[in-house]
Amino acid sequence: MFDKQVYTERRNRLRAKMGSGIILIPGNNDAPMNYTDNTYHFRQDSTFLYLFGLDMPGLFGVIDANTGNDALFGNDNSIEDIIWSGVKPSLSELAVSVGVKDTAPFKDLFVKVGKGSQAHFLPPYRADVKLLLEELLGIPTAYLEKHASMDLIHALVAMRSVKDDSEIAEIEVACETGYKMHVAAMKMAKPGVMEQEIAGTIEGIALAYGGGTAFPTILTQNGQTLHNHLHSFQLEKGRLMIVDAGAESNGHYASDFTRTIPVGGKFSQKQLEIYNIVLKANNTATALIKPGKTYLSIHLKIAEVITTELKELGLMKGDVKEAVASGAHALFMPHGLGHMMGLDVHDMENYGQIHVGYDDEVRPIDQFGTAYLRLGRKLQKGFVITNEPGLYFIPALIEKWYNEKINHAFINFDQARKYLDFGGIRLEDDILVTDTGARVLGKRIPINPDEVGSLQLQ
Amino acid sequence: MFDKQVYTERRNRLRAKMGSGIILIPGNNDAPMNYTDNTYHFRQDSTFLYLFGLDMPGLFGVIDANTGNDALFGNDNSIEDIIWSGVKPSLSELAVSVGVKDTAPFKDLFVKVGKGSQAHFLPPYRADVKLLLEELLGIPTAYLEKHASMDLIHALVAMRSVKDDSEIAEIEVACETGYKMHVAAMKMAKPGVMEQEIAGTIEGIALAYGGGTAFPTILTQNGQTLHNHLHSFQLEKGRLMIVDAGAESNGHYASDFTRTIPVGGKFSQKQLEIYNIVLKANNTATALIKPGKTYLSIHLKIAEVITTELKELGLMKGDVKEAVASGAHALFMPHGLGHMMGLDVHDMENYGQIHVGYDDEVRPIDQFGTAYLRLGRKLQKGFVITNEPGLYFIPALIEKWYNEKINHAFINFDQARKYLDFGGIRLEDDILVTDTGARVLGKRIPINPDEVGSLQLQ
Repeated sequence: MFDKQVYTERRNRLRAKMGSGIILIPGNNDAPMNYTDNTYHFRQDSTFLYLFGLDMPGLFGVIDANTGNDALFGNDNSIEDIIWSGVKPSLSELAVSVGVKDTAPFKDLFVKVGKGSQAHFLPPYRADVKLLLEELLGIPTAYLEKHASMDLIHALVAMRSVKDDSEIAEIEVACETGYKMHVAAMKMAKPGVMEQEIAGTIEGIALAYGGGTAFPTILTQNGQTLHNHLHSFQLEKGRLMIVDAGAESNGHYASDFTRTIPVGGKFSQKQLEIYNIVLKANNTATALIKPGKTYLSIHLKIAEVITTELKELGLMKGDVKEAVASGAHALFMPHGLGHMMGLDVHDMENYGQIHVGYDDEVRPIDQFGTAYLRLGRKLQKGFVITNEPGLYFIPALIEKWYNEKINHAFINFDQARKYLDFGGIRLEDDILVTDTGARVLGKRIPINPDEVGSLQLQ
Repeated sequence: MFDKQVYTERRNRLRAKMGSGIILIPGNNDAPMNYTDNTYHFRQDSTFLYLFGLDMPGLFGVIDANTGNDALFGNDNSIEDIIWSGVKPSLSELAVSVGVKDTAPFKDLFVKVGKGSQAHFLPPYRADVKLLLEELLGIPTAYLEKHASMDLIHALVAMRSVKDDSEIAEIEVACETGYKMHVAAMKMAKPGVMEQEIAGTIEGIALAYGGGTAFPTILTQNGQTLHNHLHSFQLEKGRLMIVDAGAESNGHYASDFTRTIPVGGKFSQKQLEIYNIVLKANNTATALIKPGKTYLSIHLKIAEVITTELKELGLMKGDVKEAVASGAHALFMPHGLGHMMGLDVHDMENYGQIHVGYDDEVRPIDQFGTAYLRLGRKLQKGFVITNEPGLYFIPALIEKWYNEKINHAFINFDQARKYLDFGGIRLEDDILVTDTGARVLGKRIPINPDEVGSLQLQ
């Protein structure tokens, strides 16, 4: 948690941006796993963390832009709570620690805020919060998203997009844990080991040194599947293992890294060729990132790098700029170059990606590939973003494009079919946009092809 | 997953018990962490696992006791799903693998089942499932629990309480992982280590060798708090670290063990005295467990063992049987001796503990202490239960009883106040009720006081 002035100042800035109205910031509750009292690790709502800092269930924050007051609603502990869960600070003590003066029992929320009140709220993403807002505001759950406040979304996107030094320090703590996770995976990636054993071990590292993983770990030999959460296979020599994993700091800032490791320690020539293209794409992107450029322009530049190199390998053909304009590269890199990162690994994704990643200048594009680009807008100093180019050979997609005659002018399908058992390669770093360019956050995880495999041979 | 005959047979037994009506078995969905698409590890609903076996989100099972048919509702993958999540079996292939013939797209559920239908359902515990049932049946979420089917609860409690050999084998796999977790914690429990580092490491073991932890790990030097999920302290020499942790097998059967470890490797004389009482209570309980006895009677017998020993130490006084009848022992052991365990660590707790742990013979008791006894009923062969006596010195509770003059005839408060910085000790094994008695499941985790601390000294 930061100093209480940080939260007071953030709430005041938000109030100033909003001008008037009552702003509702529900905290998260414990999420049941297989029955009510058997819960997942508690994860506070990121907006609540940003504005009220308190990392425990059962709280509701109200920022009143009419009166200038803030209030926290929640319940104090009973003696039974103390026996089972220990002595905790009172609600008013908690409130003071984040600069809030007014507190009240949770039920008083229904007195303070009621049906028809001019309340700003964000699109809810947890069903229990939807039910609470329905009860509070009289808006049926199915209509809540439609009634979410665009003013509140825009104000918070503007504030949270730019990270201050203390936030960057938190992200670097998460990066340090991410480094430990990836190096552990590299050491374990020997033939015969179960994917699950490695995935579990590195998730344990995330729990041991921070708030757990920032997102469900992707760790698989089947890297052609972009978000593969199965870890049920035994590692086979000669295959590639993709690890896309990151940690949260104890303050719940994220890291998000991807490395691709040759099982058995050595890349084949064919693997090395593709690996080096992705590495070149990653390094080129970091060199291009600076304030004032749009991330869409960098994404498209990287698409050109990839297309040029894939032409060299005989996988693509034709004019590079035309191929990229047609989205032909997206057969091999169907996703975007990266996304915002902060308190959420896809920062503020619950506000609606379109409001976070785009602005008036950079309109969203419907084309396959760029449709998955989560971040297109002009970069500013203080943005923390991911840089994660990748190349994949997805049999179902290759056959679909072949059969539906998509981009036949730019793809050599005969050549692509030689890679159907290849899998995929992705390389991802976390980047801070600085005054003049970019800085890779954290100590850079081994990425040169010689290094990446060598750790398992030691 | 078991063979498809297992699930078919279970559904047929349930149908026979119910006689008529439509039985709704909603599967769980992915649970959002900090935005919709950033989810916790998926945990299928245990009843769904028991009856339909399939371990993935987005499914809904219907058992028709009128027609004898079973059906699964869900959606097949789109090409986008395949790119992001990989090729998966179709719904009809999945259904065949668990002996179900009828499948249909999820939306058809609203045609098959509608408002006013004679539908049996269980009390829902996840808010998204509540919303789905509200939409399906027209019963507002707040009234669903009241409309849950007691017939269905009783039928399933009868079936799930008795574990067959294949279920016991799964539980023993979970016990094996639990063993690894606890031995790792014993080795790590050195002065200066952060609690979080150990808790994270053992949760990683649960993920590496199974479906993760069966419940949030309790690992703390502040063992006087029964369910302490904070791990924020550094271990100090001379204190006691309680570890209450267990794993799930990949098939989601649970284990649940507690050990208490002296930080620095050696118990003090004062700690050893209390430790040996708890150990005696644990061993005595295992020796007492057999079919036909009620667990309430064993709980009360253990209360007598504890009271007798605490009298020896001068912490209690008066007649032992009278003290237990007054619940005086509950100052030091405020919880019950144990609970059912199976697909849930507190098996079937979502059905309502009173229906799982009690029967007509053993009526629930309102007294503090036994009120927390989750299992009181007559034991049967095939029950899997925990045996977890403990002794705690909870300052707030000791002061409350002193001030409110509770059980002054049986407690030496002057003596109890000498233990205010003691913490707590709990020792828990998982027990199978056999033909003639009890069997400790899994290889028994080191429990003799000499062994428990020695691992960290190696």
